Amino acid sequence: MKLSIKDIQQAHERIAPYIHRTPVLESRALNKIIGCELFFKAENLQKIGAFKARGGCNAVFSMDEASLQKGVITHSSGNHGAALAWAAALRGAPCTVVMPENAPVVKIAAVEGYGANIVLCEPTMAAREAMVAKLVTEQGSTLVHPFDNDIIIAGQGTAAIEMLDQVEGSLDIMIAPIGGGGLLAGTAIATKALAKNTQVIGAEPAQANDAWLGFNSGTRLPEFSPNTICDGLRATVGVRNFEIITQQVDDILLCSEERVVEAMRLIWTRLKVICEPSCAVPLAIIMDQPEQFQGKRVGIILTGGNIDLDNLPW
Amino acid sequence: MKLSIKDIQQAHERIAPYIHRTPVLESRALNKIIGCELFFKAENLQKIGAFKARGGCNAVFSMDEASLQKGVITHSSGNHGAALAWAAALRGAPCTVVMPENAPVVKIAAVEGYGANIVLCEPTMAAREAMVAKLVTEQGSTLVHPFDNDIIIAGQGTAAIEMLDQVEGSLDIMIAPIGGGGLLAGTAIATKALAKNTQVIGAEPAQANDAWLGFNSGTRLPEFSPNTICDGLRATVGVRNFEIITQQVDDILLCSEERVVEAMRLIWTRLKVICEPSCAVPLAIIMDQPEQFQGKRVGIILTGGNIDLDNLPW
Repeated sequence: MKLSIKDIQQAHERIAPYIHRTPVLESRALNKIIGCELFFKAENLQKIGAFKARGGCNAVFSMDEASLQKGVITHSSGNHGAALAWAAALRGAPCTVVMPENAPVVKIAAVEGYGANIVLCEPTMAAREAMVAKLVTEQGSTLVHPFDNDIIIAGQGTAAIEMLDQVEGSLDIMIAPIGGGGLLAGTAIATKALAKNTQVIGAEPAQANDAWLGFNSGTRLPEFSPNTICDGLRATVGVRNFEIITQQVDDILLCSEERVVEAMRLIWTRLKVICEPSCAVPLAIIMDQPEQFQGKRVGIILTGGNIDLDNLPW
Repeated sequence: MKLSIKDIQQAHERIAPYIHRTPVLESRALNKIIGCELFFKAENLQKIGAFKARGGCNAVFSMDEASLQKGVITHSSGNHGAALAWAAALRGAPCTVVMPENAPVVKIAAVEGYGANIVLCEPTMAAREAMVAKLVTEQGSTLVHPFDNDIIIAGQGTAAIEMLDQVEGSLDIMIAPIGGGGLLAGTAIATKALAKNTQVIGAEPAQANDAWLGFNSGTRLPEFSPNTICDGLRATVGVRNFEIITQQVDDILLCSEERVVEAMRLIWTRLKVICEPSCAVPLAIIMDQPEQFQGKRVGIILTGGNIDLDNLPW
C-alpha cells in the first residue's frame, strides 16, 4: 500500500504526546552570510537529540502489547538505536540494538543509558543485517528497521508537517540529508502534499553519494562503502526509501567533507546549537552551490546533535 | 522612582517586535541526573546570542531621535556591547563600545560585526568608566550603562515574564547569574510580581563573589577583582542593582570554577545548545548544593552562547 500524507498525520497524532515540538531557528546574521532566508527545524533539540525519536516512537506505539513483550530489535549507527531504546522504555518493552564497532562512543553510551541491550558487530550493512536476523530468530523479537520501513518513514515525515505549520509564508525549497532515506522520504511525502510548490532536495556528502548515484542512474545501489565524517549518513539508501525518493524528490545535491565542517561550525556559532556533522550537510550544500539557493526561502531539517565533544573536527 | 513590573511589561511590548521569544528547554535525562525538574529559558538563542539584546533594545527604542543621532556609547566585556551595537544599527544610530583588552576575541568580533566603533582599555571597571566619560564629553553621545540603569534592568526582566508564561504550572525557584546584576534585578522584580511564591536566587562563581559578600554584609563592594572563567560575570554589581537585589532576592549562592565547566558540558551534551561559562553558573550551583533543590521545579535563565570554539575549557 502506498504511504500517504494521512499516514504521516496519523503518526503525528500518535507521537505528539511524547516528542518535543522543536523550534524553528533563524539567524539574520547567518542569512546575510549565506545569501538566502534559512529556517532550521531544530530536531537536534528533539528527544534523544535527533529526529529519529519520531520514527522510533511511531513504531513502538503502533505495536500491540503481545508483540511488545517479546521485545524490539534494530541495527543502527546510533541515533535510531537510541530512539528505539527510548521509545521501548516508555512502554516497558525489552530492546536490543546491534551497533557497528566504529559507532561514536557517545552514541553507544546514549543507547545504554536508555536501558537497551547492545550487541557490537563489524561496520558493514551485511554484518549488521546478519546479526539482527540471528537475534530475531533466537528472541522472537520484532525488527524495527532504521529506515526501510513505512512506519519509520511516516514518523520521520512528522518533522516536515510541524515545520510547514511553524514557518510563516511559503518555502521555496525544503532540504534534508539522506542516510538510509527515511527522513527524506517522509519529508518529501509531507511537503509535496502540504506545499506542492515547494521543491524537495536531498543532501548527501560526495563521499557517501550512493543515493545520488542511484537517483541519477535510476537504479539503487544495493551496497556501498562510504568514507565520510558524517557518521549518521553512512547507511545505503533503502529499497522503499529509494522508490519514494525517485518519485517525489526533485533533486539530490552533493557537498565536500571540508564544507561540512565549515557549515557545522557556522551552525554552532550562529544558531548556538550543537549539531553533528551529518546535520550540517544541507547547509554545506547551499554553501557549495549558492547560485541555486540565492534569495530563496529554504527550510532545513537539522537532524541531530549527538557528538563527542572530545573529538570535534576543528 | 521605583522600578516596577509595569516598566518591565512596557519594555516587553516595546522590544517584542525585534527580539526572539526564545524557547524553554527541558531534558528528562538531565532532570534524572540532577534530581529536580529544570526549565531553561534559552536566551543563548536570543538575538546576538544573549539576553542582553533585551536591555540594549529597550534602551535604544526608548530614546528620542535627536539624542540617537549623537550616538550611544557603553562599556562591556562583550554581550552588552553587541546588544547595543545591534539595537543602534536597527535605528541607524552611531555606537561606540569600550571593551577590556582581555575580552574574548569572538565577542570583540561580534561587536565589530554589528558596525560599532570599538575602543579597547585596561580590564578594570575604573578604566572602563574613565574612558567612557572621556568619550561622552568628546562625542556628546548617550551612555547606556550595561547594568546600573533602570531601562536596562527593565529590558532584562522581560525574559522572566516570558518564561513564567511559557512554563505550565508554577516554579518553586527562579535562578539567574549575577555579573553587574541587571538580569537578576529585572528577574526578581518580574518574578516577585507575577509569581509571589517563587523563590528568587542569584548565582555567582565563588571566585567573583562580590554580590554575595555585599548581600551578606549589607554593604555593596565598590570595587573588586574577580578571577573566574566566567567572562560575563566579571563586573562588580551596580548601585541600583544592589538595592533591588537586597530588597527582592531571597538568596545568593556560590559555585566552584570546576563545577561551572562540568555544568557547561552537561548543557552542551544534554540540551544540545551552546552556552558560555557564565551561563552554566546556575546549574553549577544546583549541582554543588543539591539538597536545596532536590525535587523542586526550577527555572534557569540561560544567559548567552558567545564562546570561542577554539578555546573550550575541556
